[in-house]
Parts: sequence; structure tokens; C-alpha cells
Amino acid sequence: MSRKLKALILNCSLKKSNEPSNTDAMLNDFIKIFDGKQVESEVIRVADYQVAYGIASDMGDGDEWPQIWEKVKEADILLVGTPVWLGEKSSISKLVLERLDGGSSETNEKGQSIFYNKVAGAAVTGNEDGAKNAGGDLIFGLAQLGYTVPPNPLAYWVGEAGPGPSYVEAEGYKSEFTQSTIQMAGHNLVHLASILNEQPIPAEGNAS
Amino acid sequence: MSRKLKALILNCSLKKSNEPSNTDAMLNDFIKIFDGKQVESEVIRVADYQVAYGIASDMGDGDEWPQIWEKVKEADILLVGTPVWLGEKSSISKLVLERLDGGSSETNEKGQSIFYNKVAGAAVTGNEDGAKNAGGDLIFGLAQLGYTVPPNPLAYWVGEAGPGPSYVEAEGYKSEFTQSTIQMAGHNLVHLASILNEQPIPAEGNAS
Amino acid sequence: MSRKLKALILNCSLKKSNEPSNTDAMLNDFIKIFDGKQVESEVIRVADYQVAYGIASDMGDGDEWPQIWEKVKEADILLVGTPVWLGEKSSISKLVLERLDGGSSETNEKGQSIFYNKVAGAAVTGNEDGAKNAGGDLIFGLAQLGYTVPPNPLAYWVGEAGPGPSYVEAEGYKSEFTQSTIQMAGHNLVHLASILNEQPIPAEGNAS
Amino acid sequence: MSRKLKALILNCSLKKSNEPSNTDAMLNDFIKIFDGKQVESEVIRVADYQVAYGIASDMGDGDEWPQIWEKVKEADILLVGTPVWLGEKSSISKLVLERLDGGSSETNEKGQSIFYNKVAGAAVTGNEDGAKNAGGDLIFGLAQLGYTVPPNPLAYWVGEAGPGPSYVEAEGYKSEFTQSTIQMAGHNLVHLASILNEQPIPAEGNAS
Repeated sequence: MSRKLKALILNCSLKKSNEPSNTDAMLNDFIKIFDGKQVESEVIRVADYQVAYGIASDMGDGDEWPQIWEKVKEADILLVGTPVWLGEKSSISKLVLERLDGGSSETNEKGQSIFYNKVAGAAVTGNEDGAKNAGGDLIFGLAQLGYTVPPNPLAYWVGEAGPGPSYVEAEGYKSEFTQSTIQMAGHNLVHLASILNEQPIPAEGNAS
Repeated sequence: MSRKLKALILNCSLKKSNEPSNTDAMLNDFIKIFDGKQVESEVIRVADYQVAYGIASDMGDGDEWPQIWEKVKEADILLVGTPVWLGEKSSISKLVLERLDGGSSETNEKGQSIFYNKVAGAAVTGNEDGAKNAGGDLIFGLAQLGYTVPPNPLAYWVGEAGPGPSYVEAEGYKSEFTQSTIQMAGHNLVHLASILNEQPIPAEGNAS
Repeated sequence: MSRKLKALILNCSLKKSNEPSNTDAMLNDFIKIFDGKQVESEVIRVADYQVAYGIASDMGDGDEWPQIWEKVKEADILLVGTPVWLGEKSSISKLVLERLDGGSSETNEKGQSIFYNKVAGAAVTGNEDGAKNAGGDLIFGLAQLGYTVPPNPLAYWVGEAGPGPSYVEAEGYKSEFTQSTIQMAGHNLVHLASILNEQPIPAEGNAS
Repeated sequence: MSRKLKALILNCSLKKSNEPSNTDAMLNDFIKIFDGKQVESEVIRVADYQVAYGIASDMGDGDEWPQIWEKVKEADILLVGTPVWLGEKSSISKLVLERLDGGSSETNEKGQSIFYNKVAGAAVTGNEDGAKNAGGDLIFGLAQLGYTVPPNPLAYWVGEAGPGPSYVEAEGYKSEFTQSTIQMAGHNLVHLASILNEQPIPAEGNAS
């Protein structure tokens, strides 16, 4: 009865998709969870697009964000993936937050922010320290925009302090802990999206 | 049919309740929303209790956290209020996160973290800059523990950069923007707690 | 006897220099301080350049960062200016940190990081909340790279919580507090750069 | 000729000194550096003191912060050590920042903040992720109060994502990377304190 849910996965690696991304390896495990729950998913490597700087849904002049923005609006689930640089989320993931903010004046049919009744989470990989800082900034930013955040919304892996191998080379995906964060974040995103699909947040106190 | 929901409000002011708290003034507006939605609420001034340092539910030796912890477990909604000091949440609010973490090994009857199917938000007042940093740290921390976070989970007021009057003296509660953040956070906490009360998050991918 | 000091000011506004920037207005007050202390200064609007994503000094393929990078290496003082978006520094300022990190393997003649004996600060404007979070991330990131940070390294202005006029329109530059932060950050950057110019940090414990 | 420098080390572990602290093990390596440079040092386990909540130098009523505060004022170097809890610095380290803020209205003989011409750094240990977030908050907070921050002011160790052994058990002190952060932070604190001892920051633009 309930319609099929959609998940949009934005990989905010600094590299285009002609180069392998460690974060992608983690996102693939999310796709398996989404597949198993009959949730349609699509991964976008944001660096492949010419996304302009600015706070609007369409900055014109060749800006390719509008292509992504249409998919954001169609998706029930938004998962933002980012590598860690200097202990923080990537510049591209911050650009994504800014562009989402540019669309935050759009509303749904009940007058709520367009992001209401959608759920969000984050997936972070780095060779060392910074995953919670990176993920926390993303998750709080998305909640402020209007996304609902499930329990344990962050999947992550980082190695020991200092330079070292990254997720794929270090086989971080074999970490029992990291797998549990992926399972929790992946399943909880689907669970909460399903619940909100059946029983949306009423337009009381939150609609313009 | 559905049971009456409960909200626990932890005011993490550095002052005991024999002194007025600006954050309290904001929390009172939440109580009105909770009352209007038939949600039972209780405010605790954490500084009134001898809360020990440490990562356990009960540190013994006169530790009064266990009194608060029982109420945390009974509440469907947790609202953490904090003032801003040096652009950050208060030390007492960080102490609360640490003590909640100490209870995170407890599970509900489905084997999920004890915080599952509970919702959390934050209320922040300061005389200047720092509300989102303070609130974001709290909200992300609570989500990591297992709370579900509704859209727009942060109510806040801060004045212009620099020293100046605080919330009550500045009549920050008259700010249309601040009131809208209170209304959104307050209502969304109740909405999401009601939804999860009727339709809890299934124990799939998230239970031990 | 001592050579003339140089300051490089990177304005990380999301707008190109054909549009007015609030942050620029604050940076102009820094230039006055630098002029008064015979410090040569230059402002670069980073958005005017095609700065590639990545962690290297030169990403090739039309990357214009190398033009900025040469100036970074020549400057004794680095001042990073950023607007606040969603309570955080701009994506462009994060891009700048990433690109600086790409150059961090270069060393000076004593084998220290190329950033040693240079000093750094930040200037932040926003219409509301987030200046310390934005500035703190920049300042800590620069210190980790090897910059020395003077006391009170952050100049900022933000208005009261919620939407409102920005720095120029709100005449934030008239704020006595904001002016004092500009004076402290501006003078302390020059003071510390002068001190380190005369008495550099010895290559002991910090050189490769 | 130049007077002997003093370093104060505040260990903000949640445990009193009758229990071993992982952070202490790292701080011991700093003491060796300080000894080697003829810098007198003292470690205080803050949890051993009854430090009251509040923003003043002396909260009265048995408050033991004044004992620590006197040592803060005498020290040329302040090193704050903290464990990581939930990816953040400890509540006790935040309490220390608040109490330092309470003394920030005191000035030196030139009218500058009492913290001028003193230098600060941080040492962080955790079993996983969060060192830069913890250390960055401390370092920025201390710079805002008036401390000068040397290059590479943060020494840290954390293990791979997830539960695991802490610093001592994991022999994190054997990490070449962690040792290099200790050497850099330790030496740079002494270098900069020596430089500022000989050539203090002039009272221009920064004095009341």
C-alpha cells in the first residue's frame, strides 16, 4: 500500500567519480541495506557536477545544483557521505549544506519546510580522527533545515591517530564496530522514513 | 487510547534554582506547549543535585544522578536547556551527556538502546553568539546515544556580538524568530514522540 | 633593520568581487591597522579564482590556487575572512584550509613546516549566531598547520538570533565590541609577526 | 638572565588522582620536555579539587578553584589535558574554561588581559575519535581568553573507531606520530614562552 521509498546518497568526496573514493566503499554497504528493504537508491558524486557557490536553489550561469536539487526533493532519505580533512567534513559537503539552505524557503503542501517528513544521516571515513565532528556538523545542519534524524544516524570509520591507510586499504569495512554503525544508521533511516511516510508530522507549530 | 506522554526538561544552568535562570524563562514556554498537548512535564535544575563526574549510571558515594536517571528513563521527551559560555554549552550540560552515556548499555525490552523511541531537543540562551554550536553538540550527542531528533530541534536566543543583556532583561522571548524556534521545537518533540509511541522503531539492525 | 612585513587577507565570501561583501567591510578596518603599522597588505577574494578541490598545492588542469599559494608563502600574516552560513564558516574557507593542508609538506630552510614563524587570525561576519564556531575552526586549523596564533585572534560581528540585516546594513562596524575585536586581532597579528621576525621559533622538536 | 619559566598542567580527567589516568601518561612526556628545558612544571588533577560551577574567580562557599587560579596566574605555560568522551573534551575541562573566563577581567601591569604573554596548548587521549574536536575547542577558548598559541599546539592519541584499549593499554605512547605531536607541542610551548618572556606583546590595541 505504502509507496516505494527513495534514498539519495550524496558522496562529498573531493574526487570525481573517475577516481576511487573510500567513502564510496562505505556507501555501498548502505545500498545493500536499502536494496534489502526495497528502498530505491542513487549515489551522486557531487564533485562530478559544477555546483556553484551561493545560497539559492539555482545560481544560474551553468550551475548544475538544480539537477541534484530535484533529486533531493524526491527522496525520502538523504545520506551525506564525506571524507575527513583536518578533522572536519569536506568543503564539498559544506557546499551541499549551503545549497540545501538555499532551497529551505520552499514548502510542502502543508506549508512545512520542504525537508519535513524526510530523514537524514551521515557516513564518514577518514584515515584518522574527526568522524564525529564531521558527522555531527552534517547531522545538526540537516536537522535545522527540517530533516528528521533517526537514532545512531552516523556510520563511520577512522584509523588510529596519525597518517595511515584509508578505509579500503585498511579494510575498515571489516571492523565490527563500523559495520554496526552502518547497520544501525541504514536500518534506522529506512525505519523512520517508513514511519513518517505512514504517519507524517502534523502541520501544527511548524508551518508558515 | 495512547498513554500520556512525559517530558523531562534538564536546565543545565550553572546556577542553582535559588537564583533566576535565563534559560528557565525559555523552558517555561516549552512547558506551555507541553501542557497544551497534554504532555506531563517536569523541569530539573541539574545544579541543585550533587552529580558526580564519571561514566556510569551510579558513581556511588552520594552521587545524586540516579534520581535524575530514573526520570530520564521514564520520559518520552528529553529537552536539554543550556546557557552559552565562551560560545559553547555549559560544563553541566556536558556532564549530563557523560552521565547519559554511562547508562547507554541499558536496553529496552526489544534489545535496543534504552534511548530508542524517545525524542530529544535543546533550548539555548546566551547574551551573544554560540547557540547553534551549543545546541548542535547536544543534539548530535543525544542522537548518537539513541534519541530520535525531530525537525528544527533547537530553540534559541542570543543577542548581538559582545556583552549585553541576557534573555530575560533583553526580552528575547519577544523575538518573533525565537518564538518560532520554540514553537517548532516544542511541537515537533510532541509530534514525533506521539508518532513513535504509536509506531515504535522496529528492532531490526539496531538491537543487540 | 627588520624587513617590511606582509599580510595576506583571504576573503572567503561565497560572492565574487563584483558583488559587495559584508566581510570585506570588516577586512578594510584591518587594512587600516596594517597600514598604520607599515605592514603591506593584499586582499584576495577567493571566489574570483578557479580553486580546484583536492589536497595538493597544485591540482593542475586550470587550478588557480598556485597563484594564491605563492602569496601565502610570502606573507608573514594570514587573515582569513568568512561569512557565517548555518552557524559555520563558508565552504570556500574550508576549501582554503584543504588547499593549505596540501602545501603542508613544504618546509622552510630550517626544516620546519612552511607555516612556522607566520601568524594567523580570522574575521567573521554574519547576520546571526555562529562567529565563534566559524572562527574557532579556522584558527585551530591554521595552528595545526603551523601558524602561530596571537591572543584574541578573532574579530567578529553577528546580530541577534534570527534573520536580520548584515554587517554593513546593520552598521555592525559601529559596535564598540566589534571594533575592539578588530583592534586586538589586527594589532596582535602585527605584534606577534614582528616578534617572530626578530626572534624566530628555534628548530628544536619541530623540524624534520 | 631570563627568569625560570613555569608550566602549569591541568589534567581534566573525570577521575581523581587515586585512579590512574591515561591522559597523565601523556602529560608525563611533557614534563620530561619541560625538565629538559629547565621549565618548572606542576600537574594538577582538577577532579581532586572541589571546583564550583560559575563565572567568577572565587565562587565562595568552599570553592577550591582559587588555589588553582593562583597557579594559573604564576605560570607562563598552561597545558590542558583531557580525555575524550562522546567525541568531545571532558566536562571538567569545560568547567576549567568557565572558571578561567571568570578571571578574564583581571589585567597585567600594562592593562592587558592577565593571560597575555602566556602560552597555551592541549593534550588529548581517547580510545577513539574526537581528539581534534576536543583539543580545538580548548585551544580556541584559551586564545580567546588571551593566551598565545604556538604552532602545532595539540598532542593527541586516539585508537581506531569503536571501543578499544585506551592510551596506556594500547601503548599509544609508542606511536611515532603521537610522540611527534608531544615533541612539537612541548617544545613550541617552551620556545614561545621564552620568546614572549624576552619580548612581550606591546600594549597597543589590546589594553584597556
